[in-house]
Amino acid sequence: MTSYLKPEYPIGIFDSGIGGLTVASAVVKALPKEKIIYFGDTAHLPYGDKSTAAIQAYVIKIIQLLLEQPCKLILIACNSATAAAFELVKEYVGVKALLVNVIDPAVHYLHQHFAGKRVGLIATRQTVNSAIYERKIKALHADITPVSHATNLLASAIEEFGNHPVMDSLLATYLAEETLHTVDALLLACTHYPVVKERIQAYYTSRVNKAVTIIDSSDIVAEAVKQQLEKANLLNLDGDGQKRFYLSDYTESFNQNARLFFEEPIHLQHYSLWD
Amino acid sequence: MTSYLKPEYPIGIFDSGIGGLTVASAVVKALPKEKIIYFGDTAHLPYGDKSTAAIQAYVIKIIQLLLEQPCKLILIACNSATAAAFELVKEYVGVKALLVNVIDPAVHYLHQHFAGKRVGLIATRQTVNSAIYERKIKALHADITPVSHATNLLASAIEEFGNHPVMDSLLATYLAEETLHTVDALLLACTHYPVVKERIQAYYTSRVNKAVTIIDSSDIVAEAVKQQLEKANLLNLDGDGQKRFYLSDYTESFNQNARLFFEEPIHLQHYSLWD
Repeated sequence: MTSYLKPEYPIGIFDSGIGGLTVASAVVKALPKEKIIYFGDTAHLPYGDKSTAAIQAYVIKIIQLLLEQPCKLILIACNSATAAAFELVKEYVGVKALLVNVIDPAVHYLHQHFAGKRVGLIATRQTVNSAIYERKIKALHADITPVSHATNLLASAIEEFGNHPVMDSLLATYLAEETLHTVDALLLACTHYPVVKERIQAYYTSRVNKAVTIIDSSDIVAEAVKQQLEKANLLNLDGDGQKRFYLSDYTESFNQNARLFFEEPIHLQHYSLWD
Repeated sequence: MTSYLKPEYPIGIFDSGIGGLTVASAVVKALPKEKIIYFGDTAHLPYGDKSTAAIQAYVIKIIQLLLEQPCKLILIACNSATAAAFELVKEYVGVKALLVNVIDPAVHYLHQHFAGKRVGLIATRQTVNSAIYERKIKALHADITPVSHATNLLASAIEEFGNHPVMDSLLATYLAEETLHTVDALLLACTHYPVVKERIQAYYTSRVNKAVTIIDSSDIVAEAVKQQLEKANLLNLDGDGQKRFYLSDYTESFNQNARLFFEEPIHLQHYSLWD
């Protein structure tokens, strides 16, 4: 079906900004020889507050770019984009590339490891309002009680400040939500949030009278990418690990964070989605 | 020139969200009998991170709506929109309505009251990068030394949290910028910021070893609106003070804040800019 795809083709990864870098770096760790093309739609971030139709329009343009490379696998490294556009993307991509999102692997992981538990989900307004986690948990007949809470400003704040102490105040304001204190685990259901994972863990350790596992799904998603490539005989085991970064708007925040994640010189290229 | 305009026509005011409400409430205080139509472009906020072209496209759609009412005066109650689109709007509106922005009255005020002084300007990235205040200060030959600093997340944070204690941490992070400690006055060059004016004042009182005047230009802008209407014989002195609010996306934040500002029942109407 996907027989014209080749192992040496790159993996395409995209997000609204730096969030997807948390997933991309997990993919690079798991598959260091793969070529990576990363697209950060910084002109339109944050996705979390956009309408479904707007996100769909942005995502289709990005998918077109990634298919043209061509990429052998496209990873939607953004929960809001998955919530708003995954079904559309699946139809659009068809057999032209493998496709992985950040939600399905996480839901399977919850199903395997947290049966019978209450799991908190912090995410953007778009992701929470879509109820996509709730629907996928139900579809799997997973015995999980999800407790969702929208933490709207977090992704933008992480774009602006990174892992800065001011994030503690923002996190304390959002995590003060009582229902989030009753959970057994908390899933970071936005790919920006792992940037402040230690601060979230510290909040729970110091303020919540209960052991709560903080789940960063980056490694889980990277494993899903590896499995899909293995299954399709498309793993690249002796590539040069080249990385290319496209941004729809140059932001210094992206530049700094990309260097931080990959600890190597990064070449950023501007690519306007609407020229 | 504008002879077909009538005193009973409404004043049109717009902003990306709740920021313009600070100006609108000053206008209502100064001109309580005037009809007001307020447009909050909540579907596209924050404007501060958008490209100039994107803001221009949004603004022209809003101006069309306000001209159709028809409004006798249009007040651009947003610094980012003024920086990105005022010249375009001036051409577009022509003699169809009077036009006031939030920047010109503030610059005239600085010229009159702060000659020989250093004036800090906190604003969105769009406003700071446009250097519009610097250019207008220069054009007036005003003896003001402007010190601009972009405080990108502030407007979104005010939309999300309003005047909440978490804002103190954000403000402390932004205002720690050393150059902002050397000024004689600080102009709030985004109409969202007056919502947290007391917190900004408190930061300067407790942390900066110098008396700094915090300038909220709402009343200055309201006075400019009054003067323009007077000059054109378009003041409405016996109207019913009716207010109408249009939003491009319904947000609970807007609803709560509109009630707060006007202390009366508010009717919000959804108006999609792209349907």
